[in-house]
Amino acid sequence: METTKFILDERDLPTHWYNVLPDLPEPLPPLVHPGTKEPLPREGPLPPPLFPDAINKQEFSTESYIEIPDEVQQIYKLWRPSPLHRAYGLEKALNTPAKIFYKNESVSPAGSHKLNTAVPQAYYAKKEGFKRLATETGAGQWGSAMALGAMFFGLECKVYMVKVSYNQKPYRRSMIETWGAKVVASPSEDTEIGRRILAEDPDSPGSLGIAISEACEDAFAHDDTKYSIGSVVNHVLLHQTVIGQEIKKQLEMADAYPDVIFGCVGGGSSFGGMILPFIKDKMGGKDLRLVAVEPEACPTMTKGIYTWDFGDVAGFAPIVRMYTLGHSFVPPPVHAGGLRYHGMSPILCHLHKLGLIEARAEHQVATFKAAVTFARSEGIISAPEPAHAIKAAIDEAIRCRESGEAKTILFLLCGHGHFDMAAYDEYLSGRLTDYEYPEEKVKEALASLPEVPTA
Amino acid sequence: METTKFILDERDLPTHWYNVLPDLPEPLPPLVHPGTKEPLPREGPLPPPLFPDAINKQEFSTESYIEIPDEVQQIYKLWRPSPLHRAYGLEKALNTPAKIFYKNESVSPAGSHKLNTAVPQAYYAKKEGFKRLATETGAGQWGSAMALGAMFFGLECKVYMVKVSYNQKPYRRSMIETWGAKVVASPSEDTEIGRRILAEDPDSPGSLGIAISEACEDAFAHDDTKYSIGSVVNHVLLHQTVIGQEIKKQLEMADAYPDVIFGCVGGGSSFGGMILPFIKDKMGGKDLRLVAVEPEACPTMTKGIYTWDFGDVAGFAPIVRMYTLGHSFVPPPVHAGGLRYHGMSPILCHLHKLGLIEARAEHQVATFKAAVTFARSEGIISAPEPAHAIKAAIDEAIRCRESGEAKTILFLLCGHGHFDMAAYDEYLSGRLTDYEYPEEKVKEALASLPEVPTA
Repeated sequence: METTKFILDERDLPTHWYNVLPDLPEPLPPLVHPGTKEPLPREGPLPPPLFPDAINKQEFSTESYIEIPDEVQQIYKLWRPSPLHRAYGLEKALNTPAKIFYKNESVSPAGSHKLNTAVPQAYYAKKEGFKRLATETGAGQWGSAMALGAMFFGLECKVYMVKVSYNQKPYRRSMIETWGAKVVASPSEDTEIGRRILAEDPDSPGSLGIAISEACEDAFAHDDTKYSIGSVVNHVLLHQTVIGQEIKKQLEMADAYPDVIFGCVGGGSSFGGMILPFIKDKMGGKDLRLVAVEPEACPTMTKGIYTWDFGDVAGFAPIVRMYTLGHSFVPPPVHAGGLRYHGMSPILCHLHKLGLIEARAEHQVATFKAAVTFARSEGIISAPEPAHAIKAAIDEAIRCRESGEAKTILFLLCGHGHFDMAAYDEYLSGRLTDYEYPEEKVKEALASLPEVPTA
Repeated sequence: METTKFILDERDLPTHWYNVLPDLPEPLPPLVHPGTKEPLPREGPLPPPLFPDAINKQEFSTESYIEIPDEVQQIYKLWRPSPLHRAYGLEKALNTPAKIFYKNESVSPAGSHKLNTAVPQAYYAKKEGFKRLATETGAGQWGSAMALGAMFFGLECKVYMVKVSYNQKPYRRSMIETWGAKVVASPSEDTEIGRRILAEDPDSPGSLGIAISEACEDAFAHDDTKYSIGSVVNHVLLHQTVIGQEIKKQLEMADAYPDVIFGCVGGGSSFGGMILPFIKDKMGGKDLRLVAVEPEACPTMTKGIYTWDFGDVAGFAPIVRMYTLGHSFVPPPVHAGGLRYHGMSPILCHLHKLGLIEARAEHQVATFKAAVTFARSEGIISAPEPAHAIKAAIDEAIRCRESGEAKTILFLLCGHGHFDMAAYDEYLSGRLTDYEYPEEKVKEALASLPEVPTA
């Protein structure tokens, strides 16, 4: 019988995170101070001191490999190494000569890859003597992962959850509370900025930008508290490289090497964690396509511009050079809430400019159709975000059927859809619709970019 | 660093199911015909021909090991072998010298052990030329597993879902539909008995008994359709023995042997599948306790009587000798919907009468408290059903702390709680309550047992 899963032993768990920064053919553009608009030193630290020291160092590290602390490895072992599956069922359903593999990060207790970075962020905060973490969450994937990460190290955790999601997704909220964290609807009465927004508009539905601002203010206001973030920045991609490192070992077990790799991108951390360990192969001339898949409703890399912009709405975070739709752009409410971000990981944007990775965009209904094809052939219910990668992988496999090529296709299933069944219900009952690219809104948002003298 | 998971290779997947029937020190009591009240031949088949032939044979088989078909093994490999975890986090939280292990069946794509039997039931139906399966579901665990099992073999599947759950648990319903099965609220207009009940009471909330009757009628009425069932009967326990067989190999890897094993019981299939491969050790004099844990609200083994009763409400199914609270007993609406059954697997009842297994009962609030302790130490959110096993395991570990004994404790995590967060929310907000044992209702129900001349 055919092998369907490639499972590494716990002894094969990566012992180091892979840091792509020293391997880049050109260095990343510097960060720019949000106030002075002057470039910041390339060696860091990030202003203001939101993160634990160790995290701040990792953000700018020039070491190629950074050791994963024993305590973090021990917790990773609760669910890692995660399986790599050969998708025989999907191949058969598509009648394709292509070989399809997927890495399954949905097996983490929080249900996604997010826990890979939540655990070390909590570890370093604890190690440096802090008692609390503050963070934001949109749909709740990151907030639940951070709650669990904090719990493992006995830290308090406060999650500012975008109010509209807080009300729409009570089960993600209950999950956060089950793991012992506090969660409030944002804007909240608990911060200065929250109170100010509520005074202006008591019915504000909140936004990720507001929630980030509240979490940062909370961290500034409490000496015992640090801020944590779930995507975009370098250290988060660094932590996620356990994904790609495991994949490389598992593909060896399967005696395979991909022709093309697909992953969804919001802030870019799961895709980055998957593809960065492959980037030296690519730079060495390997015939390998690395494709980021984003929603048509928020097409940062395919339709945004590469420029200097704020990472957050309030302008607390540094200005970065990246693809952006404008920091004031509010994407349409697609179910793939984790992909609704105006910007993108600076590392991924840089790799795109260098021609090392590609990007494509998909419409919502087509991604759910792909997710149902996947569920009906592989049995697993995908989150709406990785459904974008599934859609792209299915298209590629169909092209292989037409051309007769037996390509090797790999995609990342970064999370399950157990808390997204309402979206499946909409799709199955024909109520799900697409959102066109909101061109005018993006134009407006791009009109208010920060002016950076160095740009 | 310490090993936390014991993972078998796919090559170590059991190749046979273990059949306890020929190893029993005394044979199981015969089944009794629901109409004539006469004993049925011990060699089967089950009247009427609800099941595929192969299943009917397995129900009465005298072979100790029954080969798992290749096609079934291939699908098992999507998630099996499932992990055995050493619960270091829980041990630390309880400050106990006990070693705690748990087998994790929540990793199946349907979220529980139920898929272990759904797959072979679909396989045999397909192999014998049938096109459809009909089944019932209460809270939806079994219905979703059967939908997925049917999907793997391209069978149609119709799930009669108890109306109150159909309305309360829309996400389990969406899961069933995502896998391509049809699901209707029961009582439905689709069957004679459904229409009869709706004519009498258009607002009937339904019951598992009614849903079973509708699914059976559907199977009788369609030549291309067989009935499938998710617990209680011998062949379901047989299929679940992959659980216990894997555990034995994994405990060898861990160089451990349990002093006590806990599992929750509703119909008894997950507990049976776990402990039957240990029963010969127990009969051989091994110092090993096998403990079934049930809800105080539906305490079949701890407060029921051992007698002849119908397995279903309508009296379609054979009369069996088992512990029962009376087939007309409707248990209180505890969140552990999978444990709300008036009877119990005849094999487990027989083993209890023979003194080979024990039973205990737990209150709802205490089981959720245990589940939260587990979530906050091991990170996994348990379903309400296995929370009963967790409660018993925690009690045992605390006794070990008090006595200083370093016992080895094993329990079964038969499913995750991703669709039960509303129940966690009730617990965390202090709204969850216990249901006392409904003694008067049970007395009433026990007054209407069938009269069986052989009894």
